Amino acid sequence: MSEVQNIGIVGGGQVAQTIGNKMLTLGLAVMISSRDLDSDRDLGPRGKLPSVNQWASQHTAAGLKAFGGSFSQAAEFGEVVFNCTAGVGSVDALTAAGEHNLADKILVDLANPLDFSQGMPPTLAVCNTDSLGERIQAHFPQARVVKALNTVSAGVMVDPKLVTGAHDIFVAGNDVEAKEWVSHILLREWFGWERINDLGDITAARALEMYLPLWLQLFQMLQTPYFNIQVVR
Amino acid sequence: MSEVQNIGIVGGGQVAQTIGNKMLTLGLAVMISSRDLDSDRDLGPRGKLPSVNQWASQHTAAGLKAFGGSFSQAAEFGEVVFNCTAGVGSVDALTAAGEHNLADKILVDLANPLDFSQGMPPTLAVCNTDSLGERIQAHFPQARVVKALNTVSAGVMVDPKLVTGAHDIFVAGNDVEAKEWVSHILLREWFGWERINDLGDITAARALEMYLPLWLQLFQMLQTPYFNIQVVR
Repeated sequence: MSEVQNIGIVGGGQVAQTIGNKMLTLGLAVMISSRDLDSDRDLGPRGKLPSVNQWASQHTAAGLKAFGGSFSQAAEFGEVVFNCTAGVGSVDALTAAGEHNLADKILVDLANPLDFSQGMPPTLAVCNTDSLGERIQAHFPQARVVKALNTVSAGVMVDPKLVTGAHDIFVAGNDVEAKEWVSHILLREWFGWERINDLGDITAARALEMYLPLWLQLFQMLQTPYFNIQVVR
Repeated sequence: MSEVQNIGIVGGGQVAQTIGNKMLTLGLAVMISSRDLDSDRDLGPRGKLPSVNQWASQHTAAGLKAFGGSFSQAAEFGEVVFNCTAGVGSVDALTAAGEHNLADKILVDLANPLDFSQGMPPTLAVCNTDSLGERIQAHFPQARVVKALNTVSAGVMVDPKLVTGAHDIFVAGNDVEAKEWVSHILLREWFGWERINDLGDITAARALEMYLPLWLQLFQMLQTPYFNIQVVR
């Protein structure tokens, strides 16, 4: 499992591109994905997010192994698959990706089920007695779902040193080997995380997703996405 | 407001007694309360919690200003009132305490709406689009509700040095002066908190209460209630 070469990312937005960019710098081959490969995205004052095809061609021109494709192509491509879609659309997107393309693979679920339909702040589309992580595991029982990284912003996910001082990240999932790969290879070796906490089976995704309202409050208070929490005892 | 002498505590359990004990050591007069003043409580391996009347008589014998009474007597007694009841029963208990006894007073809400009726781990009886803090403010519109301290265990509430290193506490509420009293007098001066974060109006109680599932996961992982989080940037 430590010899993973091909990363499939279901999603083509900011989280997908941030994860993808980091994977490319590690020498990995990455396919990000979208239903619409040619639309860029207006991020307001933060500029424009390239379309999936633009992202791929820019990085290919720089000699990197970057690809764009459909959800299904990306899931097929990846030896490990990342769910980087908006949480309210994740089950649909992963269904389009294809259950057979996820079977027996580690599926790292980074998403939060934020529902913006009633305005700001968003609520959670699922919580308390269920979670997005559990729903994904239930919909795709052969996938080895690991909930991880949903408690920090995209930049911090791949570069924990953006936050000064010690801080913590969490994993949850039913497959112990999958969690070990995510903890030791993905989080520690590839992304540089030092404090990694295993919270148990996938039901702990409830706790990780229900932390989001506090994250949003802290984001508003601190006016920066570059923060996290340290567990102190 | 800094000359508060009489503290009314709605509730007589472990949180009520911990808060009460601390207030007594500060020279304040404290009334804790219960529907049943004479029943002690079995805490299993941690021993027995004295009944409200036992608590009062033990401390009175030591020369301290400790009283036991009904919810209504405690709320009437307090210049500041604390809600230290189990969250699922808080609105009923505060109704018994009497709306007129809460009017224009700071009501510090420490409770979490944990529902143990479906077994462990507990779920939240209210969350996401509402919170216990908001419900209490809505039921008692003349009370000056401040949500605080619900994110740490009782011992840490009154003795933050039980946790080594810097760590954070939060307040939320609609009444700015009430929050300032809670922040500067109660939390900093009386209890010794150094990092106090104002998260805004009482709707932020959602975030503070929805943190509880993560607190419970961390409690299970760390096997001690003496922990907290530090916000790191």
